[in-house]
Amino acid sequence: MLFTEIIRKTQHKEVLSKEEITWFTNSYASNKIPDYQMSAWLMAAYINGISKTETLNLTTAIRNSGRTLDWTDKAWFQSPELVADKHSTGGVGDKVSLILVPLALHFGLRVPMMSGRSLGHTGGTVDKLESIPGFSLFLNEAQLNESMGQFGAAMICQTEDLCPADKKLYALRDVTSTIDCVELITASIVSKKWAEGVGTIVYDVKFGSAAFMDTLERARTLAASLVEVSKQAGMRASAMITRMAEPLGSMVGNRSEVKESLWILKNEYPSTEEKNIAHPLAHLCCQMAAKMALLAGTRNDYKAATKEAIEYLESGKGYEVFLDLSIRQGARQNWEKDFTLHPAAWILSAKEDGWIKQIDSRKLGLSGLELGMGRATKDDIIDPKAAFQIHTKIGNSVKKGDKILTFFGEEERLNASIIAQLEGLVEISKEKVLEKEELLVETLD
Amino acid sequence: MLFTEIIRKTQHKEVLSKEEITWFTNSYASNKIPDYQMSAWLMAAYINGISKTETLNLTTAIRNSGRTLDWTDKAWFQSPELVADKHSTGGVGDKVSLILVPLALHFGLRVPMMSGRSLGHTGGTVDKLESIPGFSLFLNEAQLNESMGQFGAAMICQTEDLCPADKKLYALRDVTSTIDCVELITASIVSKKWAEGVGTIVYDVKFGSAAFMDTLERARTLAASLVEVSKQAGMRASAMITRMAEPLGSMVGNRSEVKESLWILKNEYPSTEEKNIAHPLAHLCCQMAAKMALLAGTRNDYKAATKEAIEYLESGKGYEVFLDLSIRQGARQNWEKDFTLHPAAWILSAKEDGWIKQIDSRKLGLSGLELGMGRATKDDIIDPKAAFQIHTKIGNSVKKGDKILTFFGEEERLNASIIAQLEGLVEISKEKVLEKEELLVETLD
Repeated sequence: MLFTEIIRKTQHKEVLSKEEITWFTNSYASNKIPDYQMSAWLMAAYINGISKTETLNLTTAIRNSGRTLDWTDKAWFQSPELVADKHSTGGVGDKVSLILVPLALHFGLRVPMMSGRSLGHTGGTVDKLESIPGFSLFLNEAQLNESMGQFGAAMICQTEDLCPADKKLYALRDVTSTIDCVELITASIVSKKWAEGVGTIVYDVKFGSAAFMDTLERARTLAASLVEVSKQAGMRASAMITRMAEPLGSMVGNRSEVKESLWILKNEYPSTEEKNIAHPLAHLCCQMAAKMALLAGTRNDYKAATKEAIEYLESGKGYEVFLDLSIRQGARQNWEKDFTLHPAAWILSAKEDGWIKQIDSRKLGLSGLELGMGRATKDDIIDPKAAFQIHTKIGNSVKKGDKILTFFGEEERLNASIIAQLEGLVEISKEKVLEKEELLVETLD
Repeated sequence: MLFTEIIRKTQHKEVLSKEEITWFTNSYASNKIPDYQMSAWLMAAYINGISKTETLNLTTAIRNSGRTLDWTDKAWFQSPELVADKHSTGGVGDKVSLILVPLALHFGLRVPMMSGRSLGHTGGTVDKLESIPGFSLFLNEAQLNESMGQFGAAMICQTEDLCPADKKLYALRDVTSTIDCVELITASIVSKKWAEGVGTIVYDVKFGSAAFMDTLERARTLAASLVEVSKQAGMRASAMITRMAEPLGSMVGNRSEVKESLWILKNEYPSTEEKNIAHPLAHLCCQMAAKMALLAGTRNDYKAATKEAIEYLESGKGYEVFLDLSIRQGARQNWEKDFTLHPAAWILSAKEDGWIKQIDSRKLGLSGLELGMGRATKDDIIDPKAAFQIHTKIGNSVKKGDKILTFFGEEERLNASIIAQLEGLVEISKEKVLEKEELLVETLD
């Protein structure tokens, strides 16, 4: 086959065959197609779109470009749908995965949760967990199987041999302005979840100024595509469309997000301020866990299951489950006892009385990145103890001088431009602002 | 500037500024932008198009990416419009340039004719001239200026330092399916003619099955774009839209095309067969020369000038002028005396009585390429003595057994697949076929 002819077809809105898609995906993964040709195809696919069948075929080809996990021959395996995972399109302060694992286990699911690292303004679950001393997300097959069998879950880092075509494609899309394309995002996400061997998947598709998809409409399109292709791939799938206007919870930064997850799982907060701010996030985790249970068939009433999840979090039982998981994955005994952040280095206070109208999460994420919480390039080193605490929420009233945000970290990292950016994060209105609604806007099955 | 942001703009149909276009053209020419990013931009430009102003700015940036020729300070220089050239979008058997130079000189023009090599199924003037023993198209500045001053014309090969951005862009377009894009073609062609320093330019935009532009409609679009951008660049410009259904003239292959040019210039043909077949081509050369003279203002009546050109060719005076030019550019004295082809190696005869309905020039060009007349890649070596002679024209009647095509060349190059291709070239109809009309369909000023 000639790749120029394949490019020509997509360029002229002709449909590619499964053979053509499989061929070029494998050829690209094995470096037989140069980047400069693949980027031309990606741009043609971005502008003209590709059909649903082509998206499924691309997903399949990417999945099959590397190793795939197969649980069916394991002693503990009962039924495909009981092996479940979630995927979020990425948010600032998004620590859902850490809270969701104990909940999913409570609902009788097995969770081989595979996560990525931070890149850009959103965090990565891998970096958050690696802020726990000793915690390793690199399990070999035997360790992974043991965790899945004895404990029911494992939190692992996506390995190099899983969907290698996606790694190359994603890196190329990143530098050719072809990231935000529904079909390409779908193939990238679904191929990885499929390769993990899960039978049930819940997507958290975020929308808003700080999300990948800026509008509800675009989030719906992506959600529909993810669910459709996942189903065609044989998975049980749902997508929850959730707001990404302000950070999720009060803490942003790797170790601080683990701390907040522990507060939620133990139902013990430093003060009611943190409890109130964490509430919508905790509630979303419960809805997501309930949805997973419903899809997998271990529960059959979504409302009742959500209530059950809320009661589970209120009981504080999830705390010990998470600590157990951490110790199984190498964390030092009693790590949670002295799990400290940097001292507070800078505080943002309200300059006037009023109501919080906006907290710009994208800028917050980008400032955090510069302050050591994330990475702009793959080679940047993360400072796990750097953190932001947000002391308020959109819709809350504030008095002049009230604390709005604290930066825990190395003072020398602060400079005039970051301080200016942080000072511009929060908009205070003289008029009362409607309190933010629930994070979950709608669910797509 | 960020090239990803520039890609994003074209991808979303936003207009680029002159500064942006100049910046990325220079950055690409100096290897500061990688191919994989440029190919994404090219595909976005291909699918979404770019505006007329952007096309002009790209043309300007490509022209300015390297050396530009400036004739204004030369002793012989009188006025910009008297320095003229033509450009053809490429045809099979297209030897117009060789015949046009003596005609243009006759009309009082100076012609720094810059040509390319063959690539794909169409020939290149450089290869044709290099089939003359000793002829060199590589003149240094002093030689070029001397030829322009003393003789009035020079036939040169595009040098590496002229429009280097175009060289890189063209090579990338060739492998990313972004060749046939009116705006990109325009920028590529006009930038080179502009860099040559010509003030008058006539384009020969071919259309038909064997041409770049398959339909008259597409040829018109390209012609309009070429003329408009050339005028904006300060040149006097016209485009002639011409048919490319059958080969131009009876000879295809480098040395054979020089031979046919000499027949036309001397008005001496081996037989009336060759004269009849060459007639439309010779006529087109006269029209083109007349058009150049009209644009430059050395003549003011197109019909009269065309007639004058016809009479010039009939006089045979052009023959000595071309020989003079060849000797000035290094050709061996009396080279024309023993300017031989290979012996005839294969003949295609009519299999039935009827009328010639079609001669597939594209296939003829591609077969010629395989038989040594052209090159599929830049590294292929040309066999200057290999040639086709076509003994008939569309619309002519033939009897079973009549010669249709002769291949002059190395018999061992022939194989079953080429012979099958050659045998499929010509379609004979049982019913009378309308005689082909004139090559020139319309002129666009």
